[in-house]
Amino acid sequence: MPDLPKILDRRTSRPGGLFEVETLELEFSNGVQRTYERLLNSGLGAVIVVPLLDNDTVVLLREYCAGFHRYELGLVKGRLDPGESHVEAADRELKEEAGYGAGRIEIINSLSMAPAYMSHETVVVLARDLYPCRLQGDEPEPIETVTWPLADLHELALREDMTEGRTVAALYLARDYLENES
Amino acid sequence: MPDLPKILDRRTSRPGGLFEVETLELEFSNGVQRTYERLLNSGLGAVIVVPLLDNDTVVLLREYCAGFHRYELGLVKGRLDPGESHVEAADRELKEEAGYGAGRIEIINSLSMAPAYMSHETVVVLARDLYPCRLQGDEPEPIETVTWPLADLHELALREDMTEGRTVAALYLARDYLENES
Repeated sequence: MPDLPKILDRRTSRPGGLFEVETLELEFSNGVQRTYERLLNSGLGAVIVVPLLDNDTVVLLREYCAGFHRYELGLVKGRLDPGESHVEAADRELKEEAGYGAGRIEIINSLSMAPAYMSHETVVVLARDLYPCRLQGDEPEPIETVTWPLADLHELALREDMTEGRTVAALYLARDYLENES
Repeated sequence: MPDLPKILDRRTSRPGGLFEVETLELEFSNGVQRTYERLLNSGLGAVIVVPLLDNDTVVLLREYCAGFHRYELGLVKGRLDPGESHVEAADRELKEEAGYGAGRIEIINSLSMAPAYMSHETVVVLARDLYPCRLQGDEPEPIETVTWPLADLHELALREDMTEGRTVAALYLARDYLENES
């Protein structure tokens, strides 16, 4: 493992905004100096939830995605509120976004987005023993749910409205987890 | 499929910077109005490359990741240069970052990062028939390569230095692609 670069200087712009940028002046262990920019993550952490109706049926959401200005299929996701654990946040988001509570919630992995310039970390959670339960969230409109067989992940991942790396990864990780369990 | 929200207003901040933010004033089809922020992507597109030494051995990189200020395992990745196709960019990045050319390069899918507030799209490419070939890139230090059996993806994804959603997704998608092929 190489020695980490030395941070010679760091400064922040847009303090307090949703997207805060930090500029790092780095010196690598071979003496090369470079300027890096990274997005700071002011959040308390995030979860992505794989809710299973049974061992082969996952619940997906169809949600508006401003990045592409289109609707996409994806998993329940959200940020932790102050004082919440990942499991508590997963339980709340599942109730707000999908209308289900879960009798069993397990953490199975953790994913980043673009570690080269982002520090977001999203904990992957498996939710089982689902029961209908809805909490009021801050969504601008009702979210449609769609079920999909875990056996057909490859076909799902080829859809043009199913693109997010963490979503695709979380579904495959959940399938592996279930296979190892049985 | 719901009707898309109307964009009532849009404005941009940090024009020209690496991270450009657009604020959207939206009206959803149910009349609810909301303000959304999204990161604009000024690039020409990006590729993530799954390079195979044989049908069960993938080449990974160990690279400095400023987002977490640590070294991580990942795949060859990069942005398109002006005039380049995705396949040409994959070929160049593979030579710059991993020191391999590829006799066969195929596009197998496309992944986003956080479609809720980013418009980045990364084309997933499978590279086969590798041969040693190095191009000089703009990396600050030599990049170490590591090989890993595709059969052990689950174990790889559980490593603490292998976290990126797109990387994990691309590896599973490549394995599915190879299984469907054979």
